[in-house]
Amino acid sequence: MNAEIITIGDEILIGQIVDTNSAYIAEQLNLTGVSVYRKTSVSDSRKHIMENIDRAFTTSDIIIVTGGLGPTSDDITKQVLAEYFGARCMKIHEPSLEIIKNLMHRLNIPLSETNRRQAELPDCCIPILNKNGTAPAMWFEHNGKILVSMPGVPFEMKAIMNDVIHMIGNHFNLGTVYHKTLLTYGIPESVLAEQIKEWETGLPEHLHLAYLPNPESGVRLRLSAYNINDKNSLIKEIDDYFDSLRKILKTAVYGENSDSLASSVGKLLQQKQAMLATAESCTGGRIANMITANAGSSGYFVGSVVAYSNAVKIKTLGVNASDIENYGAVSEQVVCQMAQGVRIALNADYAVATSGIAGPDGGSIEKPVGTVWIAVATPRKVVAQRYVLSTLRDVNISRASAIALNMLRLELINEN
Amino acid sequence: MNAEIITIGDEILIGQIVDTNSAYIAEQLNLTGVSVYRKTSVSDSRKHIMENIDRAFTTSDIIIVTGGLGPTSDDITKQVLAEYFGARCMKIHEPSLEIIKNLMHRLNIPLSETNRRQAELPDCCIPILNKNGTAPAMWFEHNGKILVSMPGVPFEMKAIMNDVIHMIGNHFNLGTVYHKTLLTYGIPESVLAEQIKEWETGLPEHLHLAYLPNPESGVRLRLSAYNINDKNSLIKEIDDYFDSLRKILKTAVYGENSDSLASSVGKLLQQKQAMLATAESCTGGRIANMITANAGSSGYFVGSVVAYSNAVKIKTLGVNASDIENYGAVSEQVVCQMAQGVRIALNADYAVATSGIAGPDGGSIEKPVGTVWIAVATPRKVVAQRYVLSTLRDVNISRASAIALNMLRLELINEN
Repeated sequence: MNAEIITIGDEILIGQIVDTNSAYIAEQLNLTGVSVYRKTSVSDSRKHIMENIDRAFTTSDIIIVTGGLGPTSDDITKQVLAEYFGARCMKIHEPSLEIIKNLMHRLNIPLSETNRRQAELPDCCIPILNKNGTAPAMWFEHNGKILVSMPGVPFEMKAIMNDVIHMIGNHFNLGTVYHKTLLTYGIPESVLAEQIKEWETGLPEHLHLAYLPNPESGVRLRLSAYNINDKNSLIKEIDDYFDSLRKILKTAVYGENSDSLASSVGKLLQQKQAMLATAESCTGGRIANMITANAGSSGYFVGSVVAYSNAVKIKTLGVNASDIENYGAVSEQVVCQMAQGVRIALNADYAVATSGIAGPDGGSIEKPVGTVWIAVATPRKVVAQRYVLSTLRDVNISRASAIALNMLRLELINEN
Repeated sequence: MNAEIITIGDEILIGQIVDTNSAYIAEQLNLTGVSVYRKTSVSDSRKHIMENIDRAFTTSDIIIVTGGLGPTSDDITKQVLAEYFGARCMKIHEPSLEIIKNLMHRLNIPLSETNRRQAELPDCCIPILNKNGTAPAMWFEHNGKILVSMPGVPFEMKAIMNDVIHMIGNHFNLGTVYHKTLLTYGIPESVLAEQIKEWETGLPEHLHLAYLPNPESGVRLRLSAYNINDKNSLIKEIDDYFDSLRKILKTAVYGENSDSLASSVGKLLQQKQAMLATAESCTGGRIANMITANAGSSGYFVGSVVAYSNAVKIKTLGVNASDIENYGAVSEQVVCQMAQGVRIALNADYAVATSGIAGPDGGSIEKPVGTVWIAVATPRKVVAQRYVLSTLRDVNISRASAIALNMLRLELINEN
């Protein structure tokens, strides 16, 4: 079963907004066993919208459209769909009008004619309530195939998509699909490919492997199976293949599916009932930011000292001024004292520290831009490692942060 | 001049990653006067890639392709393009091989055959160096039209896209284009539109205004002129229009072009030769991260205390324990003491502090999720403000960080 996602809006084509909707919709469709054949973004143009719907129906049974349902003159999706599906008239959808009235009432705004018109829908569609906004969604059927039109506001779309997924499940008789992803860090994609070549060639026809590399999160390995008869035995089969993969990749594997380096570190800390602190120079708070992006991180993270100036390194973290003098702030001596210093100052069990030259300036021959010292302090020891990353500031900051989290992760695992 | 962007990769169609590349590429193309006709995402399938290139060439002179250039078996873009453009053979591109060798050397990884093969390119393409990765880009010409294939790793793609834009400008000898953008924060788009209506209607035919709203950075107002004859007089003309616009919007304007709230704050601090510190609870280091993203920020930023636990608020920032007890950590009393505390502890002139409930848990009736207190401490006073943002954790963290930087910016301006 194929689907096409069509996002409508000039703001997407001029690059003004990043389209996050289609990723969410694609994920939801895949989870129900619908594979997305193609994603297309077109402008608010009658001709383009019509053309691309025609084309999508030639390859897909399901078309999901977002955008162009706003109240302003450049939002034409509803009119174009009414024409495309041969609506005889537009009809007020009372439940939607109620929602609009309540919304305006809550915002203390008198109901305008423009608001009212948003509840007008083509008579040939099945309305889907939008509980969070003024633009209802529409379900059209067309020779057994369907098209669903949803507003582009992400949180409105997401709520509606839940209902749409159920309606699709009822309308079509879908085969099951299953995906599982193993997350690895520290092995470049090409090296990884060599290491697991034998395992990969041993995979059966019905299991599809995908490499998903990302400089910040490492390489994700995803196994997918479509049109499953016996889901339980398939889940077991994929688990078995991943078990043997874990034996090959060992501690390079940091999690599964939606885990992140930070959330994996969080789980390890929770298992030890231990608290973490960070002391960040070149990463400037990015590591703390990655950790606190996870709900519940206050359960294992006390905080961070972003020691950007040497004065803060000395005063707040207790780094030895003469060591900064003798070895420089970007040195093993200083980064180890930063890690140990923040562990004590913030009364944590574990700490990670970074000190480096993010660039573009500040590099030298012996310490080029991209040079980063990273230290991990545990209740038992302090370890440090030097890296030379890239010449790009933002890359150095994000890479160093990921490497630091991974160093911490490995220490937490290896001391077990 | 039309362009189509084709992003290749199963990971996009399954919704495992959000495609940020195409927004960046679309923006860059628009800035050179090329309009994006359509964006398409297809799977790593020979048939789909071929079909969609054929179709794109019927409506566009420029096709930008990203993705599918990795070293692994599921990356087929290079082979498909070689076939599509009738390559006679694959040839090692020595400069690219050099980069790959150096990269592997820096990572202490032996050069594998897989790595080597990444430097093999179809003989019918013009290679474009990828200075930041192992997959070079390729430029193909086809009856005067062009197709460019770039790797999907965002920071690699962005660096290459700079060269591609220049090559496109030369190939199609596009007329001169000039853009200038004024950056505003704190005024909703619809209100802004009302305020500048008169100014907007007074704009001449040859100047095009674009509203570029963004929840994190406010509304950007961009004036564009295409096919310019006399660039100097045009620059003067646009400057004059922006001067009158500044008179209308006053302190809501925080910068121009590539400025950010953080870099604008940095400039103001440098003018005062003053140093900044931050104390972050709910923003978890995001503000420090935004500031230190700017090269040279060590000239005005001493550091931050991410005080996630109350213990750190009390011990490191000197917040009164009984005030946390009586008013809660998310309160005016506590956030003001955090700002003043970090200003003194880190020996800074100015400080900004945040304390809030990022969510999804921890909310109450009087302090719902999204409640954030933000304080700014100057050498003369401490001011605080309460906001209720959203129910989404990531939105609350980024909004609160932007609002905090803007509050600081306004204090720095108004005390002059």
